[in-house]
Amino acid sequence: METNSSGGGSSSGSLGSSSTMILHNAVIVTMDKESRVFRNGGVFVVQDRIKAIGQSADILQQFSQMADQIIDLQSQILLPGFVNTHVHTSQQLAKGIADDVDLMTWLHDRIWPYESNMTEEDSYISTLLCGIELIHSGVTCFAEAGGQHVSEMAKAVELLGLRACLVQSTMDCGEGLPASWAVRTTDDCIQHVAEIPYENQVVMDTRKVDHGTVTFLDKIEFLQNNLLSAHTVWVNHTEIGLLSRAGVKVSHCPASAMRMLGFAPIKEMLHADICVSLGTDGAPSNNRMSIVDEMYLASLINKGREVFANGTTDPAALPAETVLRMATINGAKSVLWDNDIGSLEAGKKADMVVVDPFSWPMVPVHDRITSLVYCMRTENVVSVMCNGQWVMKNKKILTVDEREIISAARQASDELLKRAGITIPNRMNVL
Amino acid sequence: METNSSGGGSSSGSLGSSSTMILHNAVIVTMDKESRVFRNGGVFVVQDRIKAIGQSADILQQFSQMADQIIDLQSQILLPGFVNTHVHTSQQLAKGIADDVDLMTWLHDRIWPYESNMTEEDSYISTLLCGIELIHSGVTCFAEAGGQHVSEMAKAVELLGLRACLVQSTMDCGEGLPASWAVRTTDDCIQHVAEIPYENQVVMDTRKVDHGTVTFLDKIEFLQNNLLSAHTVWVNHTEIGLLSRAGVKVSHCPASAMRMLGFAPIKEMLHADICVSLGTDGAPSNNRMSIVDEMYLASLINKGREVFANGTTDPAALPAETVLRMATINGAKSVLWDNDIGSLEAGKKADMVVVDPFSWPMVPVHDRITSLVYCMRTENVVSVMCNGQWVMKNKKILTVDEREIISAARQASDELLKRAGITIPNRMNVL
Repeated sequence: METNSSGGGSSSGSLGSSSTMILHNAVIVTMDKESRVFRNGGVFVVQDRIKAIGQSADILQQFSQMADQIIDLQSQILLPGFVNTHVHTSQQLAKGIADDVDLMTWLHDRIWPYESNMTEEDSYISTLLCGIELIHSGVTCFAEAGGQHVSEMAKAVELLGLRACLVQSTMDCGEGLPASWAVRTTDDCIQHVAEIPYENQVVMDTRKVDHGTVTFLDKIEFLQNNLLSAHTVWVNHTEIGLLSRAGVKVSHCPASAMRMLGFAPIKEMLHADICVSLGTDGAPSNNRMSIVDEMYLASLINKGREVFANGTTDPAALPAETVLRMATINGAKSVLWDNDIGSLEAGKKADMVVVDPFSWPMVPVHDRITSLVYCMRTENVVSVMCNGQWVMKNKKILTVDEREIISAARQASDELLKRAGITIPNRMNVL
Repeated sequence: METNSSGGGSSSGSLGSSSTMILHNAVIVTMDKESRVFRNGGVFVVQDRIKAIGQSADILQQFSQMADQIIDLQSQILLPGFVNTHVHTSQQLAKGIADDVDLMTWLHDRIWPYESNMTEEDSYISTLLCGIELIHSGVTCFAEAGGQHVSEMAKAVELLGLRACLVQSTMDCGEGLPASWAVRTTDDCIQHVAEIPYENQVVMDTRKVDHGTVTFLDKIEFLQNNLLSAHTVWVNHTEIGLLSRAGVKVSHCPASAMRMLGFAPIKEMLHADICVSLGTDGAPSNNRMSIVDEMYLASLINKGREVFANGTTDPAALPAETVLRMATINGAKSVLWDNDIGSLEAGKKADMVVVDPFSWPMVPVHDRITSLVYCMRTENVVSVMCNGQWVMKNKKILTVDEREIISAARQASDELLKRAGITIPNRMNVL
């Protein structure tokens, strides 16, 4: 599903997008096949697409006369929009309802009651609130990982002006499943593969294979190059080979994996040429829905994981340029959209992020690429364009009213928790 | 060393601090021994100290007539200032000079040339720049982990209006040590304990003990309750016992440990009643100097570490309230300053942070404590008071000119790298 920023033009007035536009005087990190970085680059945008990209001087000379608008980016950094390949937008209102609890409590006492009590309006507001966080962290495209009321998600995504693949969460078996869900029949194995060791054990016992989920999915010829496999933590060497040969894509969710699942063999998957991208997972599994933070985490966690594989950390494992690829072009490949997005190239969609490297989180910048991956915070993400339309400019979201959504979300989530009978125990002595 | 915000009053005009002040209508997370949280709390500040703390209504009734200023915090959260117990302020200008390289390159080709070429002015600017990041992340007190030109650090800290313990970095042996350092004689073992496995091996070989650094330090009766031991990653069960019995404090630096060192047995140390606090380490070991991010990381990393100890993650390990203690009262204990700071109590210093939980990173707040540890970002830290003086108010630092320091830091760091002959290779195809 692809959406335009329908509200963008009207709500933003003169800040709105022109049909032809030059952005110049930018450090452009293209993420194209040649890994080109223009120290002083420019891009010519016609409606929803990049028409030309190159040195500022060349772009200005060739296209100034055709441009409705010429914007000087003052040496800020221009990047492709980030792609979040695993996010549960319906769970945004559930932030903080299931922290520091075991998996059974998480599912039975918190998440299932929450999701099974969601109204259509709740899904709509939850997706809008999640969208605000996604935009602030530079995301222009995401893959919904499964939630409630897809038509409401779609309404929200259209209003936000983002690009998304939307799906419903479905389960047909599971102890303690809400009654209204138990009659569903679609198999949920598609999205969540080899999350926990117990899952592999169950699959071995019930499906008569010698390892786990991936081995079983291979046996039933389910592994295909249009499969986006989330988490994929508990896979062995043979299964990495199966995933690679089939062209399966993997969504690595570092925060959620650390908290709930374990250490995925990301370095090994990348070495086996598997396309690995980044996801945040849902708010109750992570709390921060920020690809900016996930980039930082992905690098740290995978350097640290080497302790267990090789006895010591490897500070050179998963270098910054690899992580930046995971968040951009690999994300695009994961949602089968790399013809259109994931890098800044002539002919591709104008999905772009403007990063200000001159404020305190990033100063000084001695290595642009590591600075983007390790130092950048959401504070540095100043403007976001999707499909040729500004969705955020100078930190102000143009497509929706941030305050109004926050206010609605606070109210809706309180009511939803009451309806679902979810109470969160106090951790301290509240007076 | 303790400093006042000398520039605070004059630069901030009417925003400056009064000698008596009430802050009320706040959610106050005191971090005191009873773990009290006031849902609608107030605090009465006289000069540099908290005179009274309690329910807003009581504080207003008792002290309004004595207060020069009464500030309504509009349900924002009031916390003790965070304590960063391991930060190299001299390394702030070195952000990004040593990313994704092995430890030998890190030391020999990047950090030693950088530090040995620092001028006094460089140290001053580096500490100021680091201070800006510390203030934005809610830090009011820090322990310098060792750097150059302590008198310049002290000048910077005084201007910033922060509280700090300052020390010089010293080494008396090490292959490839800069010539100007090799004549120094002070032993650096004090601060960096059991960082890497190789270190334990060297200690066993040269000092004739059966495990590593901690075992040796016990043998020479160096383990005391005034020792602040950083990192402390490679310690065994016996050594945890030694540290605990001696009352040694441990500074856990999650990001730096993941990247360079390994997984410290934090849960085990806390179970053994060791006072564990949080540090960021220096910019070239981490890149983000934010205790806000370290809280999030500490929880995630230590939940994930359980995979290797017990075969599966433990989402309940290192819960949010424990992490918040590490960043506040345990930090104060680690710098032997808990009589004065680390919690909000009558008689203690007025070192406080105002957190806005109503903007997108934290909304909705269903669990205040986890929201502070897992959702809060530096965006939510709006005001910071140290020693009764506002050092930041509504995101604006009052004690120093942020823009001026950023500009000076960019120039000084470029020149320092040139002088030191440090070149950072391009990771991409820069045109």
